Amino acid sequence: MAEAIKRLVVRGAPAIGIAAAYGLAILIQKANTMGKLKEEFEHSYQVLKSTRPTAVNLFWALERIKNKFIQLCEQSKSLEEIKAILFEEAVLIENEDFAMCRQIGAYAYTLMENLKQITAMTICNAGGLATSGYGTALAGFYMAKEKGKEIEVFSLETRPLLQGSRLTCHELLKNGIKTTLLTDNMAGYLMQVKKIDLIIVGADRIAKNGDTANKIGTYQLAILAHAHQIPFYVAAPTSTLDTALSEGSQIPIEFRDKQEVLTFQGVQSAPLAVNVFSPAFDVTPAKYITGIITNKGIYHPPYSFKIED
Amino acid sequence: MAEAIKRLVVRGAPAIGIAAAYGLAILIQKANTMGKLKEEFEHSYQVLKSTRPTAVNLFWALERIKNKFIQLCEQSKSLEEIKAILFEEAVLIENEDFAMCRQIGAYAYTLMENLKQITAMTICNAGGLATSGYGTALAGFYMAKEKGKEIEVFSLETRPLLQGSRLTCHELLKNGIKTTLLTDNMAGYLMQVKKIDLIIVGADRIAKNGDTANKIGTYQLAILAHAHQIPFYVAAPTSTLDTALSEGSQIPIEFRDKQEVLTFQGVQSAPLAVNVFSPAFDVTPAKYITGIITNKGIYHPPYSFKIED
Repeated sequence: MAEAIKRLVVRGAPAIGIAAAYGLAILIQKANTMGKLKEEFEHSYQVLKSTRPTAVNLFWALERIKNKFIQLCEQSKSLEEIKAILFEEAVLIENEDFAMCRQIGAYAYTLMENLKQITAMTICNAGGLATSGYGTALAGFYMAKEKGKEIEVFSLETRPLLQGSRLTCHELLKNGIKTTLLTDNMAGYLMQVKKIDLIIVGADRIAKNGDTANKIGTYQLAILAHAHQIPFYVAAPTSTLDTALSEGSQIPIEFRDKQEVLTFQGVQSAPLAVNVFSPAFDVTPAKYITGIITNKGIYHPPYSFKIED
Repeated sequence: MAEAIKRLVVRGAPAIGIAAAYGLAILIQKANTMGKLKEEFEHSYQVLKSTRPTAVNLFWALERIKNKFIQLCEQSKSLEEIKAILFEEAVLIENEDFAMCRQIGAYAYTLMENLKQITAMTICNAGGLATSGYGTALAGFYMAKEKGKEIEVFSLETRPLLQGSRLTCHELLKNGIKTTLLTDNMAGYLMQVKKIDLIIVGADRIAKNGDTANKIGTYQLAILAHAHQIPFYVAAPTSTLDTALSEGSQIPIEFRDKQEVLTFQGVQSAPLAVNVFSPAFDVTPAKYITGIITNKGIYHPPYSFKIED
């Protein structure tokens, strides 16, 4: 499970949280004494926690399961009861995620309901494949489709791992949404020649002041949107808010292996001797974000999230 | 030859011009009467002219050879004389290109000579592989290296055809320049976290007011440079100036086949059913261009090129 998260087999902040919760609940099933259970729990918790540094939902889900575990131990629950309840907690996290995504979609849709035709843009994949099924950034587009709106979504391919081409295009087409793919260097020109109504992206972690860590390329997309006066929204469940961080500069950015940029599916595309700069995420300053769409409503600047949010 | 230009085997505006000049000079060699020569010339001229719509050097080189041809016909030169002189003219174009690139490099170097260490950025390949050997955008970096400067160049991979990864990285490394590759969506983050001294890009066509057509992604790179207060330069020979066009909106933009975006080095990377938006070039408004480095000096805004330029 840890390996799957690390190698991005499981990806997308909410899906990582769900996978980690299930991972923890499943990995402790083999323990046959309370001592073994505690040992196995702590070990699995540490391994899962170390997989990805940027996605806060990972830590959020692990903490939620851990707090539940501590509570159950204090209540002197039996070994089998603890195993069953922690698994139920993981199921609950998944179900809650689905409901949250529907809520995000409903709020996002309010931004589009007055448009006759919707032309939107997104980067990476913050859709059903990154969540329990309905997505965050894509939720509003699914809702618009359900409401019978005519909608076209432009999907950035999102190098180096091409989540936009491989996942977002696949998922949008499957849901009957008109989808157009473009490479990451074509975003500015598209904005210059085509009226884009809005851009919605996902988030891996949002600081208290609204600064948002998301897939690499989000920051420059926000600058381009700003230069072309296109509304730029972040969509995420409130579990993505990290109120412990006052601003985005405190969010650690993961750097990935150079092989991901030098090759694609085993085919070499650059000289192996070259240096590679490969951040997996970037942080978009709150000043470039028109609004943050959550399951509890749309927030506007100046952002100042509290724990209750 | 036409096929090679069209399929981008020969690419880079100056190289296309040189190839077209040689193409025309070589294709007429088989004609054995003056009638055949004129027929063959006109046919080859039309075929070569139709290969790429954006690169003005192509038209410039073809017109130069055509004017020479008309002049030679008027002078009643013999069949063999015309064949020989047109071939010499192509050689002359190539030699002039090399000298022009050295001049561009010398002017570009004046922007860097006061820097202790140089950190630069570029997109696509406007280097020796796109010209007769020394490059336009890269010429200044080669000159800096020759002068013993410590220099690092960040090369954008430049999707979909990866000229940055495949050509620029190869060429810079071969010339002993420290080179770092990044994908096109990483440019903004790089500018946010690293001090970039200057950006130099090539040009396929420059309008009278300085608006510049170049590889797709150049426009957004210029906006990002502007947002980060990084000097943004275009480097090109004066043959790239198209004084017949008052502004960039008149430059035709070539759109490429969707297969180039749906596949990555021949490996499929997106669902085949998806639409694709794939412009090969974009136009950067003059307001985002700090200066235009030519073989005749560096021009600054407001640009207003005349034919003598």
